[in-house]
Amino acid sequence: MRALVLNCTLEKSPAPSNAQALADVVIEALRGHGVEVTVERVVDHNILFGVETDLGDGDDWPKLHEPASVSQVLLERLDAMISETKDDGTYVAYNKVAGVVVTGNEDGAHHVISEIAGSLIDIDFTIPGQAWTYWNMGPGPGPGYTETDHKHDWSESTGKTMAANLVGVAAALRAQPMPASS
Amino acid sequence: MRALVLNCTLEKSPAPSNAQALADVVIEALRGHGVEVTVERVVDHNILFGVETDLGDGDDWPKLHEPASVSQVLLERLDAMISETKDDGTYVAYNKVAGVVVTGNEDGAHHVISEIAGSLIDIDFTIPGQAWTYWNMGPGPGPGYTETDHKHDWSESTGKTMAANLVGVAAALRAQPMPASS
Amino acid sequence: MRALVLNCTLEKSPAPSNAQALADVVIEALRGHGVEVTVERVVDHNILFGVETDLGDGDDWPKLHEPASVSQVLLERLDAMISETKDDGTYVAYNKVAGVVVTGNEDGAHHVISEIAGSLIDIDFTIPGQAWTYWNMGPGPGPGYTETDHKHDWSESTGKTMAANLVGVAAALRAQPMPASS
Amino acid sequence: MRALVLNCTLEKSPAPSNAQALADVVIEALRGHGVEVTVERVVDHNILFGVETDLGDGDDWPKLHEPASVSQVLLERLDAMISETKDDGTYVAYNKVAGVVVTGNEDGAHHVISEIAGSLIDIDFTIPGQAWTYWNMGPGPGPGYTETDHKHDWSESTGKTMAANLVGVAAALRAQPMPASS
Repeated sequence: MRALVLNCTLEKSPAPSNAQALADVVIEALRGHGVEVTVERVVDHNILFGVETDLGDGDDWPKLHEPASVSQVLLERLDAMISETKDDGTYVAYNKVAGVVVTGNEDGAHHVISEIAGSLIDIDFTIPGQAWTYWNMGPGPGPGYTETDHKHDWSESTGKTMAANLVGVAAALRAQPMPASS
Repeated sequence: MRALVLNCTLEKSPAPSNAQALADVVIEALRGHGVEVTVERVVDHNILFGVETDLGDGDDWPKLHEPASVSQVLLERLDAMISETKDDGTYVAYNKVAGVVVTGNEDGAHHVISEIAGSLIDIDFTIPGQAWTYWNMGPGPGPGYTETDHKHDWSESTGKTMAANLVGVAAALRAQPMPASS
Repeated sequence: MRALVLNCTLEKSPAPSNAQALADVVIEALRGHGVEVTVERVVDHNILFGVETDLGDGDDWPKLHEPASVSQVLLERLDAMISETKDDGTYVAYNKVAGVVVTGNEDGAHHVISEIAGSLIDIDFTIPGQAWTYWNMGPGPGPGYTETDHKHDWSESTGKTMAANLVGVAAALRAQPMPASS
Repeated sequence: MRALVLNCTLEKSPAPSNAQALADVVIEALRGHGVEVTVERVVDHNILFGVETDLGDGDDWPKLHEPASVSQVLLERLDAMISETKDDGTYVAYNKVAGVVVTGNEDGAHHVISEIAGSLIDIDFTIPGQAWTYWNMGPGPGPGYTETDHKHDWSESTGKTMAANLVGVAAALRAQPMPASS
């Protein structure tokens, strides 16, 4: 089983990323389940604005294409997947699962999770129950994820359950795939 | 396989319901896949505001409890499911799938679908890819779903794919269930 | 200047309300600006589901009608205001301002604020810049607003700015009202 | 009175833009109210990802900086305005108004309007009642705004009211500005 993790932080490598710190908990748990995990930081690539799969020269999207994603730009690019089918007539995201990790300042994680999950369902990914984790620290300015221990235990425990749920549903869909749509 | 359809229209029976008209397409397709379908109109029951499973006398929620749902009141009541576990230690919504049908005036269906799907994932339901259909008619006042044929073909075709996807993922999870969370 | 504060907590009086505790900071600041404030707890009234202004016997909505509101049920009832006009041809919410206070568990306040502000703009209320405050405490289970001091200072300071902004824009619109729509 | 219209279409000039076609109705109405209007297509500029006001060489954001905006990239860049103050101590967006025009395929305009309005309120813009218009055409694939006349009358009439409301509230706030926050 393979997983692609797209880190949608705003700063290029090697700047540190709070999102990566929490994602690493999920990645380690996925690897513990035997999943082969690849990680890409999206802003290290040149992803053009657009809604088609290949926008030509200078567009790195085709190299990343296939996975789930967490930014609006990526979701717009992913939109092209809605009508792509494989040789057996099923949509390319059929039988693929996706989840979401959010870290941020203050508030808003559940909303981001709902928005991204809604977009991914739209383009045919299956979202397992509780396939997300998040961290923030309540109202007003404050430390980032890597600068405090506040509630890390909850976010990490939830991330491990997320990994188990992604693997569980992916394995079920591998054993008995969704039918080609009529 | 059994399905519970909760119609969240605002008016009690026997008032006509646009949502039911589109839901009937999905229900017929589910029955074609051998699913036993029960339909309830939520406002025909007395569902109290709250976030616990049983609020005592005069509360019809315990009778409807278990299924997916489409209104904020129901979602708040469903919140209590987040910590309910079955005898094997899995959450009660593990291995259950859910989808969403929306009809409305003008606009907003994808948003409603994302919000409800996000809430259902939160409480451990799995949402198959493209497990939704909807209908509306663009900006400004206009006819309801049952008063026009505008784009019914798309909404109905999408509803049939929704039914196939719900059944496909539910069958896969029945054959190979998600593990109990550690 | 008069303000109506609708507390949308789920429990009837005299149950304690976290939302009221934070709203009281805003209310005190509004009174400091000379505003006459009335507070109603919505669940103490019998508000029927629906989208018309008066649903007849047993409906307390007409008594509360006019103000801003924070629950989906109220927003659906408020929808009827979209076409109500005053004697001068302006919509009933023209030149009225509204703001939002949210307390909750974990996360999601900005989303609730956006949803409610969006609905209020839809029905012709004007929303001043930064006319909101909120409180929550980050991921996972934890204390309610009244059970901790965590970041109260930020939520309270923001609530006082909210009160000043509501009063400032309301005063400007009283001095020079919006024109009747053509 | 001056207005900056930021067109957030995905394609660079001179590709046609459905959003511009509907925005032009609002722009013409604003000019009829004596407003001096400037239009920029955001993707014609090089706006870097980030949350600071000036990201250095190659960043066109400082040239566009000040206005309201409709894309996530812009909203993240606008986030820096939350703490910028003018000489009198007021936030830079105090006493400025903003509105939203959306055209799209299918569905989702109200959601986009709520999200953007919510973000703009966050950074201190005031949003007048009904300061938006939109167009789409209901479920499934179909023509763009410029390829059909379907419900243009409603979207255009709503756009003219939007222009009047933006001008009305902006004029009131010019005559009697919001106070500096304490």
